[in-house]
Amino acid sequence: MCAEKLKEKKGNNLIEWYNEVLLKSEAMDFSDVKGFPVYRPYGYAMWEILESELDNRIKKIGVKNAYFPLLIPEKTLMKEKKHIAGFSPEVAWVTLGGKTDLDERLAIRPTSETIMYESYAKWIKSYRDLPLMLNQWNTVVRWETKETRLLLRGKEVMWQEGHCAFATEKEAEINALAALNIYKETMENLMAVPVLVGRKSESEKFAGATKTYTVESILSNNFTSQSATSHELGQNFSKAFDVKFLDENNEWRYVYQTSWGMAMRALGVMVLVHGDDKGLVLPPKIAPIQVVIIPILNGKESDAKLLEYTKSIAEKLKEQSIRFLLDDRNTYSAGWKFNEYDLKGVPIKLEVGERELASNTISLKIRFNGEKKAISFSDTNKLGEILNGIQREMLEEKKTENGKRIKTAKAKEEFINDLKTAKAIMKAAWCGKEDCEARIKEITGAVSRLIPLEKEELIDKKCIFCGEKATFNAYFAKSY
Amino acid sequence: MCAEKLKEKKGNNLIEWYNEVLLKSEAMDFSDVKGFPVYRPYGYAMWEILESELDNRIKKIGVKNAYFPLLIPEKTLMKEKKHIAGFSPEVAWVTLGGKTDLDERLAIRPTSETIMYESYAKWIKSYRDLPLMLNQWNTVVRWETKETRLLLRGKEVMWQEGHCAFATEKEAEINALAALNIYKETMENLMAVPVLVGRKSESEKFAGATKTYTVESILSNNFTSQSATSHELGQNFSKAFDVKFLDENNEWRYVYQTSWGMAMRALGVMVLVHGDDKGLVLPPKIAPIQVVIIPILNGKESDAKLLEYTKSIAEKLKEQSIRFLLDDRNTYSAGWKFNEYDLKGVPIKLEVGERELASNTISLKIRFNGEKKAISFSDTNKLGEILNGIQREMLEEKKTENGKRIKTAKAKEEFINDLKTAKAIMKAAWCGKEDCEARIKEITGAVSRLIPLEKEELIDKKCIFCGEKATFNAYFAKSY
Repeated sequence: MCAEKLKEKKGNNLIEWYNEVLLKSEAMDFSDVKGFPVYRPYGYAMWEILESELDNRIKKIGVKNAYFPLLIPEKTLMKEKKHIAGFSPEVAWVTLGGKTDLDERLAIRPTSETIMYESYAKWIKSYRDLPLMLNQWNTVVRWETKETRLLLRGKEVMWQEGHCAFATEKEAEINALAALNIYKETMENLMAVPVLVGRKSESEKFAGATKTYTVESILSNNFTSQSATSHELGQNFSKAFDVKFLDENNEWRYVYQTSWGMAMRALGVMVLVHGDDKGLVLPPKIAPIQVVIIPILNGKESDAKLLEYTKSIAEKLKEQSIRFLLDDRNTYSAGWKFNEYDLKGVPIKLEVGERELASNTISLKIRFNGEKKAISFSDTNKLGEILNGIQREMLEEKKTENGKRIKTAKAKEEFINDLKTAKAIMKAAWCGKEDCEARIKEITGAVSRLIPLEKEELIDKKCIFCGEKATFNAYFAKSY
Repeated sequence: MCAEKLKEKKGNNLIEWYNEVLLKSEAMDFSDVKGFPVYRPYGYAMWEILESELDNRIKKIGVKNAYFPLLIPEKTLMKEKKHIAGFSPEVAWVTLGGKTDLDERLAIRPTSETIMYESYAKWIKSYRDLPLMLNQWNTVVRWETKETRLLLRGKEVMWQEGHCAFATEKEAEINALAALNIYKETMENLMAVPVLVGRKSESEKFAGATKTYTVESILSNNFTSQSATSHELGQNFSKAFDVKFLDENNEWRYVYQTSWGMAMRALGVMVLVHGDDKGLVLPPKIAPIQVVIIPILNGKESDAKLLEYTKSIAEKLKEQSIRFLLDDRNTYSAGWKFNEYDLKGVPIKLEVGERELASNTISLKIRFNGEKKAISFSDTNKLGEILNGIQREMLEEKKTENGKRIKTAKAKEEFINDLKTAKAIMKAAWCGKEDCEARIKEITGAVSRLIPLEKEELIDKKCIFCGEKATFNAYFAKSY
């Protein structure tokens, strides 16, 4: 049962507040297994919308869905050295099948590069078999030692993973960037979360990649959160797994590969960015319920007329393909329902009592800005438009906020202090070296989040931290 | 690469033929882990259609999707005694997370009753929380010791599992039967596979159920195959997991539960039922490609005109929302393509060469009955209708065939012999006792497949096998 108010304030303790929002809105729950969350229907409905929207975008660039095994033999997982070095501390191992000890232990996939590329090596023989562009929707298991958090970091992670193979490096780059662009567009247009895109530093790169691209979202506490990543794998895996093809000149060549993924974490980021002290605040496009109709019943005869009125409103919403709920239960009070749908972040509440019935009007309340107004019955035709307006305004508002959270750092002391206290996301000229990054992390708790894709004028000739030659500008922040 | 012809005949060795069809049509593949298949894009596209169609039907009866953890603690799995007795020999155990031995080993879910009902016990407090009707799409792992078969029996099984809780036994029964009806309707209308429905005998019941309902399909070798099951769980699980609610009179009561599932096995059955010596034969509604357009290119200048013509045909198909493919690759010959799409079971092939171009016609070939005819360009408007016709005819044809495969048994000797040699599916009067069934299985290799739901007149007063009092009629067969 829902409709308890939140105890924690967002500005006071972001993570406490975040947990409370997800639990009380009945989006998510904990299970008996630490790090393995339960997606309740309301939370899963958001995932289904994200999945369906993202799936359409992925298919439009020619990628097809497939499904590969949950379990990976140890020797397969071990084939790419850097890759396994990055993942082996985090693998859950199956050692027993029924009552029999297994000859070779099996890893629950932490990601599917290795098992997929075993098949790619069988399937790809000729240039005619390229490009091979596959995606799968599944869950992966990573035995996180850090504290797990609903949606943001779990031992079981729900995601999609795209894995493509090409004849040339150029095609692979285009594909990795196309995936990155899909992720940016999904965050911004579906979830109204503005993002920064760029590439990761050497230290922050994916295990086995030649380049990692990232989509980063900015949070209200000046942390950032990675919402999706896209990798160029070069020929690292194709050489390890012997994925090669006969080209038009009848010569054997190794393919160039990419992999890219967006996880349930993107939803967590959306919750962090938009939620408020009353609960979730959902952008209309990701909201399982876009409009809720609440009749203010009073147990009198007039209720019948009221219900009839709400049904005619529902008809209007149906015509516009709006996802709506008419909550006409008499087992809960109207006041309880108002709280409930505030907690659940429903973009628009329509309240209808005797007064509205008498005047043929409807009280409309917008969740994200608290705006309240009376509309006439005929205005119900405009609700689709109003939802679109909310979607746009939510994105614009966050874009403006983000602008204020980024600061260009010119002095080392300011850089260190502002990162330590998370006063801002710091943009600075940087050398990009691994040991310099390690020191920054040690001292500030922050790391480089991304290096812009486009060539930019250097903020300074020298690295903000070590003073050696700067090679590019980068954004630094603490992160979830 | 595809378009190799099949070596095995369906009538000669059904399972050899079946494997060859799935591999050569590029629907499925083996992986390095025995019993864990790979769903290639063509096979997975069929699953996606089935999933989407079934998901719509499930949501229409008020069930919502959710997602529960992959791993289940041993003590949770052990809570319902009969259930775990049925599953424990088949469980894959995770004993190691990263480098740490786990304090309590975790089972990869063999099915999710136990982990879901832990949550149900937390969520259900009042009659207002009922019914709770959830479904999840996932894969489960069962450490099968029997030989695994692509789609039909695997260690990793792709499926949906519905789990509903009700205040009364009557509601639970209605729900279990509603799920059964969805499965029947999906097999028949989506996959053109006629089915028998009924309930399972005591021996064949699901571990922990009070009643198991089944959907059985009849194969060309007079075996049957279970395509989906639906269970009434009574209060077995609610008592074990303490799932109870305060009713309107403020008294605590245990809920009545159901669970029901359809797996990738349904696709396997469809392949077995419809395929032929040339490969897959797909009913249009489940076919990823409903119509393929093959231009017969000859490398001359006239090819340009031919391609233009095929594009105008493609436009017509698009208007009718037909899933089509225009295969205009010049890296494969037209002959290779004909074989390829026969193997892949595409319902309609449209072939266009110079002759067709000159006469503004199209050569149409129907996969399931081999019918060939020339149609005029304007007839492309009728292709949607033609596909619907094929769908209907395929179901009718199989219904007629099935009728001939069922035999009413009146004498014990005939019953035993016909079952042993799989001469027919045997319908007979039966006592329904577990020891009688065990003896039938021992002697014939067949078991009871279902007991009809409707009361029927008994074929005989005495059990066909043991001669004791018959309690109902039942169908017997060998099974995959």
